[in-house]
Order: sequence, then structure tokens, then C-alpha cells
Amino acid sequence: MKSKENDERVARMRHSTSHIMAEAVQCLFPEAKFGIGPMIEKGFYYDFDLPRALAPDDLPAIENRMREIIHQDVPFVTERIAKEKARKLFAAQPYKLELIDEISDSTATIYRQGSFTDLCRGPHLASTGEVKAFKLTHVAGAYWRGDEKRPMLQRIYGVAFAGQKELDDYLSLQAEAAKRDHRKLGKELGLFSIHEEIGPGLVCWHPKGALIRQIIEDFWRAEHRKRGYDIVYTPHIAKIDLWKTSGHLEFYRDYLFPPMEIEGQQYMLKPMNCLAHILIYKSQLRSYRNLPLRYAELGTVYRYERTGVLYGLARVRGFTQDDAHIFCRPDQVEEEVTEVLNLAQFMMSSFGFGEYELLLSTRPEKYAGTVSMWEEATGALKHVLEKLDSHYEVDPGEGVFYGPKIDIKLKDAVGHVWQGPTIQVDFNLPQRFDVCYIGEDGLEHNVVMIHRTVLGSMERFLACLVEHYGGAFPVWLSPVQATIVPIADRHVGYAHEIESVFRNDGIRVRVDDRSERMNLKIREAELEKVPYMLVVGDKEMASSSVSLRLRSGENLGSESVPQVKSRIMAAIEAKS
Amino acid sequence: MKSKENDERVARMRHSTSHIMAEAVQCLFPEAKFGIGPMIEKGFYYDFDLPRALAPDDLPAIENRMREIIHQDVPFVTERIAKEKARKLFAAQPYKLELIDEISDSTATIYRQGSFTDLCRGPHLASTGEVKAFKLTHVAGAYWRGDEKRPMLQRIYGVAFAGQKELDDYLSLQAEAAKRDHRKLGKELGLFSIHEEIGPGLVCWHPKGALIRQIIEDFWRAEHRKRGYDIVYTPHIAKIDLWKTSGHLEFYRDYLFPPMEIEGQQYMLKPMNCLAHILIYKSQLRSYRNLPLRYAELGTVYRYERTGVLYGLARVRGFTQDDAHIFCRPDQVEEEVTEVLNLAQFMMSSFGFGEYELLLSTRPEKYAGTVSMWEEATGALKHVLEKLDSHYEVDPGEGVFYGPKIDIKLKDAVGHVWQGPTIQVDFNLPQRFDVCYIGEDGLEHNVVMIHRTVLGSMERFLACLVEHYGGAFPVWLSPVQATIVPIADRHVGYAHEIESVFRNDGIRVRVDDRSERMNLKIREAELEKVPYMLVVGDKEMASSSVSLRLRSGENLGSESVPQVKSRIMAAIEAKS
Repeated sequence: MKSKENDERVARMRHSTSHIMAEAVQCLFPEAKFGIGPMIEKGFYYDFDLPRALAPDDLPAIENRMREIIHQDVPFVTERIAKEKARKLFAAQPYKLELIDEISDSTATIYRQGSFTDLCRGPHLASTGEVKAFKLTHVAGAYWRGDEKRPMLQRIYGVAFAGQKELDDYLSLQAEAAKRDHRKLGKELGLFSIHEEIGPGLVCWHPKGALIRQIIEDFWRAEHRKRGYDIVYTPHIAKIDLWKTSGHLEFYRDYLFPPMEIEGQQYMLKPMNCLAHILIYKSQLRSYRNLPLRYAELGTVYRYERTGVLYGLARVRGFTQDDAHIFCRPDQVEEEVTEVLNLAQFMMSSFGFGEYELLLSTRPEKYAGTVSMWEEATGALKHVLEKLDSHYEVDPGEGVFYGPKIDIKLKDAVGHVWQGPTIQVDFNLPQRFDVCYIGEDGLEHNVVMIHRTVLGSMERFLACLVEHYGGAFPVWLSPVQATIVPIADRHVGYAHEIESVFRNDGIRVRVDDRSERMNLKIREAELEKVPYMLVVGDKEMASSSVSLRLRSGENLGSESVPQVKSRIMAAIEAKS
Repeated sequence: MKSKENDERVARMRHSTSHIMAEAVQCLFPEAKFGIGPMIEKGFYYDFDLPRALAPDDLPAIENRMREIIHQDVPFVTERIAKEKARKLFAAQPYKLELIDEISDSTATIYRQGSFTDLCRGPHLASTGEVKAFKLTHVAGAYWRGDEKRPMLQRIYGVAFAGQKELDDYLSLQAEAAKRDHRKLGKELGLFSIHEEIGPGLVCWHPKGALIRQIIEDFWRAEHRKRGYDIVYTPHIAKIDLWKTSGHLEFYRDYLFPPMEIEGQQYMLKPMNCLAHILIYKSQLRSYRNLPLRYAELGTVYRYERTGVLYGLARVRGFTQDDAHIFCRPDQVEEEVTEVLNLAQFMMSSFGFGEYELLLSTRPEKYAGTVSMWEEATGALKHVLEKLDSHYEVDPGEGVFYGPKIDIKLKDAVGHVWQGPTIQVDFNLPQRFDVCYIGEDGLEHNVVMIHRTVLGSMERFLACLVEHYGGAFPVWLSPVQATIVPIADRHVGYAHEIESVFRNDGIRVRVDDRSERMNLKIREAELEKVPYMLVVGDKEMASSSVSLRLRSGENLGSESVPQVKSRIMAAIEAKS
């Protein structure tokens, strides 16, 4: 309870800081028109209509004025006034007038501190002095009420915390996160690019990124085969009628690419892999003895996302799902979902994710099938979660149109939360496509389908890995695992000898035989986040050893070639 | 010269057999109208307009009549007559009249044997008795003059050879080829399917086909990495402007899928992977020291082929090329082409193809770039072929629009020829896209691009493998490498023990533990073309052995479990 009170206090403080910022802006820009200024996660924002565009320099000036207001410790005073009175009070504030018009009540609540009055339901702190630690972070454009036909306002974002230490911790985590931004590191490390000439949200995987992807895919495929999955490949386009039958065209229309017409037939890029898997299933008669069948595919799908929401590899238009569809009998659903959860947890721990959240998403507003189907499917998922004694939250109305789902959100090293594995139970498509098996009773029964990914997509998962590890991938995922640095040209031959020993064991090693200074080579290998640097000079040649250095800068001194090799092989094996 | 004379004689004989068939049809259908009846590879056809559709039973009747005509040994007599006279002679033959009208000369040549006269330039045999061996094979519909707006005629196909033995050999090879048809075996062996609901030419790879594909792809990737290729992944769609710049839109329009419009931009399914590779190359400055760069991708491309030409996996609309683009300096072209040829030959021999033809395709009618560019590129390819002392043929005008190419055609076990690897030298796209490197002179120079595949496409290559091996894949490619057949239920435990020993070494093994008779299990495993069948009963259990049987039916008798395991591992290792 203590923590909840604290949360509320911090929320109130953030909201109050937004009013203090508005007062500061009013001082500096008396002509300012005010939009809204809510609290958000970690802080607040306020939207302003200002006579000129804000420059980065304006933020310190606003902050200074805010500090003065806080120092003055003026009280927040609230009052309930008639709407008519409010209209007069905000006569010069068109956005506020619009908000007043929408109040259904006959009165409006205002909050006042010092010279600034705002239309606001509160609650607020007792006085401005209670704000302990804040910082304005950035400015962005924002349409009034999010409507692109309304005026574009300037939104100032800030963060606020209960104390200076929390703020400092947050800011340094942010600075770390910015360093780890996968868009920045993706370019620096040569992992991927997105080209205007190809189109937004369409990813080219460069050699190093593609190598990491291939390692992930190989691992994924091997693990799936071990666990009784069959891998398939299916086309990226299909006749649109399939998605009429499935309901995607009806429920998912906003995310579909436009159709292409060939010989009088409309074809569409697939937004999901499920329908082709259904056709493979249906290509022969299946008995209850054959089930479950598990079809897995690294299937590239295309979904239309507005340009505005695209974000590096994390939100794209074309992405490769590590998809699978399990066709099973109703009595097998719980065991299959349990096994998928086990696999998902195994995958997450293999890639170094210890923290995650479980979310159960239930029936959305637009859904296919009957309510009783949904209840049955949701019940099955709940039962599995409870049996596994997993803590989970319910995310109401966030299921896919064809069924409820369990989502797993991964927490990365800087606390960001990523959409990870997802498991969906579907009683619906099997009915629409008449997907059956012959039961022990000799009759046809609908299968249950489980849609699932255990990584999400190759694109988003790489983004998440990059930020989790800050680009310093574990050895098994590192594109280059070791760089050998000969000190002088006379050591190059020895370097290549070690290279060939390492290569024979599959270690990805490279000799930096450029005629550059050793320190430059080491610095570049560190920037490239190569896990091991093996420096070789006269002493090392004489003793068949290397001088070993880690990308952290740590110097491990001299080690024999077999020792270093074993060390690297052990790290690869341990996925550490 | 002897052989050429023979060829001409056989050609004449095939053409004459076509006339004999026409005479036989005239006897059986006096109302028949005659189209044309040329010689083709291995035989001949003739198009007829008949009062009813031919049934399979009609062919033996026609053959019998033909045999009588041959037995009568009547002479072929030719005559040159005035066109007017010809018009009278063929007054009842509208198709012949149409042909007569098109003769620019004032006379026409006719050939007559017995009661049958044809408008024909010849040449023919001296008499019908010289036909030694023929067979009518099938009937198909054919539009008059290939024009779908003209009448549909019935085309009877036949084959004819210099002697009965050649005919018998040919027919038995054909029977074998029919058994090996990848469309038939693909279904029987559960390799792939093509669904009307998805669309023609769009392939779903079933678990066993996908497993073979994955083995091929893994092998391909590992071999490419070894040889200094970098693997990349690129999107399946891109803005259409890219293909305007490249020239594909101009030179390749008939094979492109229609565009999709998103946010005012036209996007298109990629027909080739080259352009994204160019953009990856161009994403940073490259020096002459960095070259060659070799980007490889198992890239799925989409090309519009008319429904009529689609054929199983051999001709499809969506296919995965084992593609690569080499960016190199002009002085590196020959070495790179040589290395690609080496790689291609290595790949072919790894997959068991010993026989192939080399073709050099030169400038087509529609081409991009200058004639001198074409000559330079063609010269480079020629030089490599000559240096390697390879026998090759020139295929004039068959190059791609952006450059000449070397094609390798594979000959499968029944003599069919398949399009295999292809190597194209391209001076053209580097100019259009300004693909440069900084030379030793500090100036920008255009790279040369080499486009190449060493298998062709996964789809066509699987078709070719299926037919080459008649579905009995070498052990390393077999989806199931060994089936263990317990004789009775009490041997199932022992069977699973062996299974787990084999699995630990990565052998794809399965226990057939159904309660069926041993003979049925063996027959089914043979139909499935499983290389090894391990039968286990009391005797085998007692002696820790198995009774080993091959898919050929050969029985190898008792072998210890480690012996069988080594045998299988050795076969996998040897790719045999």
C-alpha cells in the first residue's frame, strides 16, 4: 500500500511539474496558447501554440524559470467555477475553450499556482516546492488532439522523480540506452540498413547482421526439429480469397498490402503464414493418431504500417516470423501450450533474457467466432498459466481477431520492454477452413490450431538483442569472435597459423594484418565489439602463446594457443 | 559426316512417317481436314480437323493402317505444280488453301504416296517401306497456327527411329522418365504441393521436401562462406523506381508482377535480387583493397509466367534463387568467373551430376549498354572458357538484357537436360547505379558485377534431383535415412534403443512400431525410398545386431549396430 501511495504522489508531482512548466512558458512567451499537459510514464508533457519554433537553447531557460517557481514554493489552489465563468477566464485560450465546450457538467475545475491558471481536474501537490527533481528532455511536434487536420503544436517533454538520485539514475540509464540504440549500433556495427530507394520499413541485412540471423535461425531450426516440429516453406503471395475465408480481409484490412491482379485473379502479400500451413495439413487425410502436427516456418510476412510508426528494426513492414502452427486435438491443447511456453522460456534464457512479463490477452472488440469458443480458448490458456504457477496479468481486449493469446514481454538490460514470444489458441480458422481429423470414433472433428512464435520476428529480436547487449553480443553470436593483432609485419605469419588452427574448429577469427599501429587495431576491434583480441609479437611467437585482451579492455596476459582456443570454444558452447 | 548423313536420313524418315500417318487418318476419317505435319525431335506430329475427338483406342487403329502402308512399300513421288492447280487439288482442304495463298512463288511442291497427296517441300524417303520403327504416343489439342482465335485441331504425336532397338530403348527410357516425373514423385514422397487456392506456380514445401531443401541450403551456405562469400537477406518488395533505373521495367516488363501502391508510391515484387545487393554495396565507400565483395542470398523472387508454361517445380512463379553478386575490379573478372565455374562444378559433382553442357549466350535483340561493353564482357567469358579448356557452344542472342552469360545444363540419369548454374558478367548495372570503388589512383571507378547461381533455384533443382535419382535420394539428402522394423511388439524396445544411438549421431531414423506385418512395413519403406531398413527380431536382439536391407531390395544380412551405424555415417559423409 505504501508503494501505491508513493506512486500516486509521484504521479501528482509529475502532473504538477507540467503546470509549472506551463507557467514558465507563459512568462517567456506571454502570447502562448495552451493545449493539454498530462502526466506520462516517468514524466509529463505540455502542448503549446507559440509564436516561434522552440530551439534546444530554450529548454534551459524554461528550466531556470521553473526552478524559480519551485523555489518560491507557491501553493496549488483549486476552484470549481461555472462554465460561463471559465469561458471568460480562458477567453484568450482557444484550445481551452474547446475543452470547456466538451465538459458535460455545468461547472469546470481550475487549478492555479502563482500567475498561472489551468483548466484541470487535478490532483496536484500542495505547493510547487514539493517538486524535487525534474528535467526537460526534448521537443516534438504534435497535432492538436492528434488530428492531422488540426494545428501542429509544440510539445515539450520532461521527466520528474521523487529525488535527485532517481532522476540521475534514470538519466544515466537513458544515456546508456541511447548508446545502445539499435539504429545507431546497427549502422556502426554493419548489421543492417533501410533504404529510401527500396522503401521504409523494408530491411536489408548486411553481412554481419545476416550472420547473426543465420546463427539464430540455425539454432531455432535445430531446436524445433528436436522438439518434434516439421519445417516447411510457403509462398509470400496468395490469392486474396484465402484471406476472405480466414477473416483477415475483414478484421485486418488496415494492415494489408494492396492486391495485385494476375490473369483476372487478385493476389496479396501474406500478412501471416497460417493459411498455407492449413493447406499443407489438408493435403491429406489425418487421423487422431497423427496429431499433433507442428509446422514451423521462418516465414517473411508483409504488413502495412504507417510510415510514422516505423522504427528501426523494431517496427517494420516486412519481417520474418519464427512462426509455427500446431494442429492438435482439443485434449492436447494444454500440453501443447505448456510445451510452447517451455520452449519460449528455453529460447529466452539461451539468448540471455532473465526477466519477462506474461500477459493474457482476451477477446477484442472486433472478433471472429462465438463467445463460447473464446471462453473455452481463454480458459485453456488460463489453466496452463495457473498450473505453471506463473505470475501473469490480463490484457483485456488485446487478443487477435481469431483467438486469445499469451504474450511474453522481455525486459532488456536497460529496462526496456520488448514484445517477445506469443501463443494464440484458435478454434476459429479450423472451422472456417474445415480443418479436420478422423477421430477414434471414425468421425470428422475440427482440430484446434495453436499459432505461436518464440522469438517474435528476426527483425525485432535482433533490435532487442542489440540493445540488450549494447552490441557486445555473446561469443556464439558475435560475427567476429576473435581478432588476431600482429604487432609487426614479421608476426603476420604466426598470426595466420593461429587463424588456421582456430578456423578448423569453426571459430570466426580474423587477422588484422594492415600496416597500422597495434593500438589503433585494438581500438577498432573494441569498437567492433570483438570478444577476444589476441596480440602476438616476438615473445608470443617464441612461446607459442598470445597476449589475450577482452573487449571490456581487460588484459588477461599470456595464454597458450590451445588454452585460448579452449576458452573461446567453451564460451561458444555455453552461449555466454 | 557419316553421322550427319544419318541424321538427315532419320529426319527425312520422321517426316515421311508423318505423311504415312496422315494417309492412315484419311483412310479412317475421309472427312479429315489436314493442317501441318512436321518432323520434331525424336519424331513427328500432324494436326487434323476431324469429325470427332480421338480416343486412345484410335491410335492402335491408325498404327495398324500405317503398318499396312509401310508394308506395301509405295514410293513417295514429288511434283512441282502451278499454284492454281494446287488450289484445285486441295479445294476441299481449307488449311492447305491458306498455306498455298502464302506461297510467294508461282508454283507449289506436292508429295504423293499411294492415295495421299500433301502440300510439302519435302524431302522424303524413296518409299514407305523404308520406315523401320515408329510409335504413336499421344494426342493433344493445338490451335491452327498457334492462334487461340483460330480453330482447335487435334495433334497426333509419334516417334520414329532408324531401328526397332532404338525405338525400344527410347520408349523404355520414356517409361522410366514417367516413373521419375517429379510431379508424381513429389506427391508420393510428400515433398511439395501447389494449390489452386494459393495460385498456380506458387509452391508449398512439405516437411520432407523442406528438409531436403534445408540440407541443400545449409551445404550451400557453408560452402559459400568457406569460399569468401558474405550472406545477406533483402526484402521481397521494393519501390518500382529501382527497376526503372536498372532497366528491368523496360526490358523485362512481360515477366513482372503488377505494382502495389502504398502512400502514393508504387512497389513491386522483386524479380531479381541484384538491386538490393547494390544498395548494400553502396552503403559505404569501398576501396580497391576491399574488392572483390561477394554477396550471396537464398533470395525468393517472383516472375510472372503464363499459366500455360508452368510445370511442377520446374517452371514456377515464385522461386528461391541461390543467388550471388560479385563486385570486383575489371582486372579480377576472369579470376572470379573461373572460381564461380569451379564452385559450380564442385556443386554439381556433390549432387551427383557428371554430365553437363556449357553454353555461352551472347547479346540479345533487346539489350542495355553499348556494343563495346558487350564485346568486352563476352570476351572475358570466352577467355575463361578457353583457358579452362572447356568444350562449349555459343547460344547467339540468348544473353540477359544487361550482359552475356555462361549457362550450364545438367543431364540427368534419363538424359533430360536441365538449366543449372548461370554466370553473367555485367558492366551495365554498375553504370546505371553508379557502383564505384576508389582505385589505387584515388579516383572513382565502376565495378564489374557478376551475377551467378550455382544450382539455379531451389525449386527447379529439387525437380531435377527427384528425376535424376527417381526419388531414391543419396543418403545425405534422404529425409528418412533408416527405418527400424521390429518384427513383433516385443522387439519395439530394442528398436528404440538403436534409434536413440543413431539419433545421437544425427542420423535421421524412425521406428515403424505400428502393429502391422513386417512385409508391409518393408514394402512401405521401399516405396518411401528409405535407404536402409533395419529389421530386428529375437535373433538380432540376442546378438545386438540388425538384419540390414537396402531400398533396392538387396538383403545384406546381419550386421552389428556399430557396423550399420558406421556404414550409414560413411555414406552420409561421402554424399553417396
